[in-house]
Amino acid sequence: VWIGDDAAVLGGRRGPLLLAADAVVAGVHADLDLVGLDDLGWKAVAVNVSDLAAMGGRPIAAVVTVAGPPDTDLELLYDGIVAASERWGCPVVGGDLTTASALVVTVAVLGDGSGEGPPPVQRGGARVGDTILVTGALGASAAGLRLLQSGATGGPLVLAHRRPEARLDEGVAARAAGATAMIDVSDGLVADLNHVLVASGVGCRLAAVPVVEGATEEEALGGGEDYELIFTTRDPGGAGSAFARAGLPAPLVIGRCTADAGECTLDGASLDAVGWEHPWR
Amino acid sequence: VWIGDDAAVLGGRRGPLLLAADAVVAGVHADLDLVGLDDLGWKAVAVNVSDLAAMGGRPIAAVVTVAGPPDTDLELLYDGIVAASERWGCPVVGGDLTTASALVVTVAVLGDGSGEGPPPVQRGGARVGDTILVTGALGASAAGLRLLQSGATGGPLVLAHRRPEARLDEGVAARAAGATAMIDVSDGLVADLNHVLVASGVGCRLAAVPVVEGATEEEALGGGEDYELIFTTRDPGGAGSAFARAGLPAPLVIGRCTADAGECTLDGASLDAVGWEHPWR
Repeated sequence: VWIGDDAAVLGGRRGPLLLAADAVVAGVHADLDLVGLDDLGWKAVAVNVSDLAAMGGRPIAAVVTVAGPPDTDLELLYDGIVAASERWGCPVVGGDLTTASALVVTVAVLGDGSGEGPPPVQRGGARVGDTILVTGALGASAAGLRLLQSGATGGPLVLAHRRPEARLDEGVAARAAGATAMIDVSDGLVADLNHVLVASGVGCRLAAVPVVEGATEEEALGGGEDYELIFTTRDPGGAGSAFARAGLPAPLVIGRCTADAGECTLDGASLDAVGWEHPWR
Repeated sequence: VWIGDDAAVLGGRRGPLLLAADAVVAGVHADLDLVGLDDLGWKAVAVNVSDLAAMGGRPIAAVVTVAGPPDTDLELLYDGIVAASERWGCPVVGGDLTTASALVVTVAVLGDGSGEGPPPVQRGGARVGDTILVTGALGASAAGLRLLQSGATGGPLVLAHRRPEARLDEGVAARAAGATAMIDVSDGLVADLNHVLVASGVGCRLAAVPVVEGATEEEALGGGEDYELIFTTRDPGGAGSAFARAGLPAPLVIGRCTADAGECTLDGASLDAVGWEHPWR
């Protein structure tokens, strides 16, 4: 559905609306020697849908703007955009195409934040004592990139890097179960969790971080682009039940929120000490 | 209002919603030797608000994505973005900032298409016999660019190029008065009018095109970026009255829609013959 007008016309919505935008830049967010233009297109949609997932919302529609060199293979790019659009039921209703010396694909998504239960989940609601969970093991995308760089062409880790998944159902389940704060792992567990901690004014003690088979702990802590969701809750059991009822894999407990707003430890050691340089320092 | 979360949360709306996005690229849409980064920021917002104006809608919120070189003067850029955001009551509620070798500023706007009377005005509704009007004289932006290139630094034409205006009130008035089709002049009168003609399956005979003082007829026909609105209606008198009631300058009749879908003439001569090369051929 490409509306071909100045703006797309969409039906009204009673509940809260969500609006987000992210750009994916060739050579910055995707190495086109390793992944295809279709993968870049997929990713541009996926990162935006993931932003809606991290609020516990669902997509209504997207607009896609492509700025790039005239010889860009737009058909291949749009193949990936369309595939992701269909994957998450997020129709592309408009956008723009223009010349630029760098390839920048910008997607903006309108999301539906309605639904039963609490409002969309923001970053600042984590409270001292809340349990911290993640929707899946981490490090797949970074490990997949490493494998691509060493010549691999397939396998689940490579696929995780080329075609990341947005966790829409998990976001909705976490919100319905009373998540107090939520974010998606785009920059890396430590960096993204820190956004929650800063916005909420709490610290954290992590007991363990689940690492995807084939990835290193460093990739799980700092690799980013896994798009698993991190959320906090006072009722981790209730969250587990909600995920089970929704037919989703159980979320994994990784730690707890503490009162010391500066603190962030993994298994008792400061995260600096495990080799991770905090990007916010 | 920058929400600083994965997505901005906005209130629900009963009426139709509008969604649009456009990118402005340094060196393509703005020559930074002639205009400031603040002008580029203003323009990125203005072109999007103008897309809403061309539907007869009003802005609810915008998200702004900046991809650019690390040495970009973001403060200056945002000055212009904020000024335009305030000019049209279109709060910037989120976005993204990333590195790229070219400066690409992408804005997506969510608009309110509700309101009394007919639904948002699209491009395809012009009918044979409809009168074609424009909300103001054309050519100011192209003339302003020409003056800047020859060393001018101020004056109304230069201002029209640096800080184009979106015609929100005019769009609302035209819609309320029963405009059958509407578009904004971004690429040039002939090019944009043609979008309406093609979508509506009609032709046009233009009697005269109003040229801004200091601009040439060629600048008025092909210059673009004036962001005046072109609209069609069966009741030009009613449109004039509606504009007068709203305290707006009277829209100017420029011609009429004809049954010959291939036809586009100005004062009896094919527009090819007045020196304008149709961009769609």
